[in-house]
Amino acid sequence: MTEFIPPGTRYFDLPSPFPMKRGGELHGARVAYETWGTLSADGDNAILILTGLSPDAHAASNDGNPEPGWWEAMLGPGKPIDTDRWFVVCVNALGSCKGSTGPASPDPGTGRPYALDFPALSIEDGARAAAHVVDALGIRRLACLVGNSMGGMTALALLWQRPGIARAHVNISGAARALPFSIAIRSLQREAIRLDPEWNGGRYDDAHYPESGMRMARKLGVITYRSALEWDGRFGRVRLDSDRADDEPFGLEFEVESYLEAHARRFVRRFDPNSYMFMSRSMDWFDLGDYCSPHCGDHDTDAHGALAALGRSGLEKALAIGVHTDILFPLQQQEEIAEGLRAGGCDATFLPLPSPQGHDAFLVDFERFGPAVRGFLDGLG
Amino acid sequence: MTEFIPPGTRYFDLPSPFPMKRGGELHGARVAYETWGTLSADGDNAILILTGLSPDAHAASNDGNPEPGWWEAMLGPGKPIDTDRWFVVCVNALGSCKGSTGPASPDPGTGRPYALDFPALSIEDGARAAAHVVDALGIRRLACLVGNSMGGMTALALLWQRPGIARAHVNISGAARALPFSIAIRSLQREAIRLDPEWNGGRYDDAHYPESGMRMARKLGVITYRSALEWDGRFGRVRLDSDRADDEPFGLEFEVESYLEAHARRFVRRFDPNSYMFMSRSMDWFDLGDYCSPHCGDHDTDAHGALAALGRSGLEKALAIGVHTDILFPLQQQEEIAEGLRAGGCDATFLPLPSPQGHDAFLVDFERFGPAVRGFLDGLG
Repeated sequence: MTEFIPPGTRYFDLPSPFPMKRGGELHGARVAYETWGTLSADGDNAILILTGLSPDAHAASNDGNPEPGWWEAMLGPGKPIDTDRWFVVCVNALGSCKGSTGPASPDPGTGRPYALDFPALSIEDGARAAAHVVDALGIRRLACLVGNSMGGMTALALLWQRPGIARAHVNISGAARALPFSIAIRSLQREAIRLDPEWNGGRYDDAHYPESGMRMARKLGVITYRSALEWDGRFGRVRLDSDRADDEPFGLEFEVESYLEAHARRFVRRFDPNSYMFMSRSMDWFDLGDYCSPHCGDHDTDAHGALAALGRSGLEKALAIGVHTDILFPLQQQEEIAEGLRAGGCDATFLPLPSPQGHDAFLVDFERFGPAVRGFLDGLG
Repeated sequence: MTEFIPPGTRYFDLPSPFPMKRGGELHGARVAYETWGTLSADGDNAILILTGLSPDAHAASNDGNPEPGWWEAMLGPGKPIDTDRWFVVCVNALGSCKGSTGPASPDPGTGRPYALDFPALSIEDGARAAAHVVDALGIRRLACLVGNSMGGMTALALLWQRPGIARAHVNISGAARALPFSIAIRSLQREAIRLDPEWNGGRYDDAHYPESGMRMARKLGVITYRSALEWDGRFGRVRLDSDRADDEPFGLEFEVESYLEAHARRFVRRFDPNSYMFMSRSMDWFDLGDYCSPHCGDHDTDAHGALAALGRSGLEKALAIGVHTDILFPLQQQEEIAEGLRAGGCDATFLPLPSPQGHDAFLVDFERFGPAVRGFLDGLG
């Protein structure tokens, strides 16, 4: 299978069977994770990082794997998330193909990859899986729960399931519920994969692989992860040299097209298409407001339900960071998170950042995100 | 062919051959147009409307066709563009499949549709074609040139080619040059069509038609024509009734997905895929800054070239309208248009509107666009 699991990944076996929110159960499922730093004797210096859709558990270099991780600038000795002080755990999301059990994992019943026989995956399933890792590591209560993007959703689900599991929380470019614009984009990404004949209802292999569908999906992802503002400065209208331009009719001509193509090509064979489909849909389904009916009324059409559900987090302190240029998880959604947490008695701050990089800013704009996260963590008792 | 030409469409035969900006020429080409109102004896009360990518020339009902047009609320007796006062011409863009000559038209050399043998289409070609119609109708000088979206680009090209052709100009959600974010989106739309095996290098027919590619392209279009803000209020997280939901794995589930699907299905067979490809690319290529080198320096990477080129419009008065929620032709681009025109001595106003409907607001938000356009036209001498 098309799995790219970093060396040094550790695994935690989930209770078997592991029941799934929407029905079905997993047998012999596991969660991949990595750690940095040392847990204090009291078990009170732990930080859990929950990731976006595509990252693995290798957020930064560590003893098990000296390669830089996807959040290398944020995590390590003396860095904003200072591993001299904190014991940090990063969990690969349930349903991913980066070590945790997902649709590309063998179905113990058949020995073949689950593919579309994987049970319907919810954000909440990932939250429960992550909680098992926290408990197993002897963490009494998380000093801080950090969630980025999809991980921001997972973090809020976890706080609902286990109020008080964390003293503090940093929610980065997350959301308490999926909104129709983002649903539309993810739906179109999934459609691109479904339309690729090689997807074959989820039964592909390395020789017959939905490469063009994944390429389309990833390009649309990259477009919506970034922003017009950033790309104006970065690419402008620069064209490819004639030796790099495409001879195909309507082929690549501008630098920005080549950038997207290169990004997509790198991703296509490094992420399992079915895993992408299941995780993508789990985000569409996520609405913390599902938990506070009936007293919140019709929360299909407004934010009240989600706001009310945020109230029982058990958090003491929280920081919700968003970015002005984010079109996928727009700023109002992080403001809503801070507002909901605050209504529940948490000392919650909303921090809008003027990063030009859109939704992905937390992966690149360390000048802004570094001090924001460092300042918050330094302020924890 | 898959042409949908409204009844009552009139045609103007372009000079033959009609040379194209990037090489090649058209033989026996024509431009479709419609008119409203009566040209004054002095030929000084004419308004020319240049459209976006998909509309035909039927902007509103008229004697030739009583069906409502795509800008019915804006155009007619007593309406913001008051046909009791103005003689209004709307031209179908060159390269379209709605009456003007385009890739779906028969190539006189072979009798078959041009398809990819159509000469490379530029925004500037459409501008020159429209100018021929203006001249042929006996319009001495346009009282006002109105351009929407792609038509806003075409209008700026026309003003460069024929400074002074219009006394006034309304540019709606237009741009003086394409920027990389929009190029990326259009490139992905074209890729969706190219990836459809039925596109077949542009040689399809009604029986073998790139339906899924067009559907993807149109969905991405609709997503980027609208805005997250509008869709939150309109669709929220409402789900389809079980009898409308899709049984396919990963099929339609939310209202917003169904809305996109219905929109796309309506469009797919009503617009020629090759025409879509050519017009889409013509927008990517458009950069008014191409005309002011060398004195503007490297205008691949900044706006100076386009700004300078706007200076020779010969306009007396202009209004550049944009919308805060437009991600495809962002507000800064209309501000840039006003700024460039002003630098050339034109009394140009930039009007940002708080419409929630994104790029397409001018097609729906008549409460805001109506008074804005009416006020400007009323103020013309």
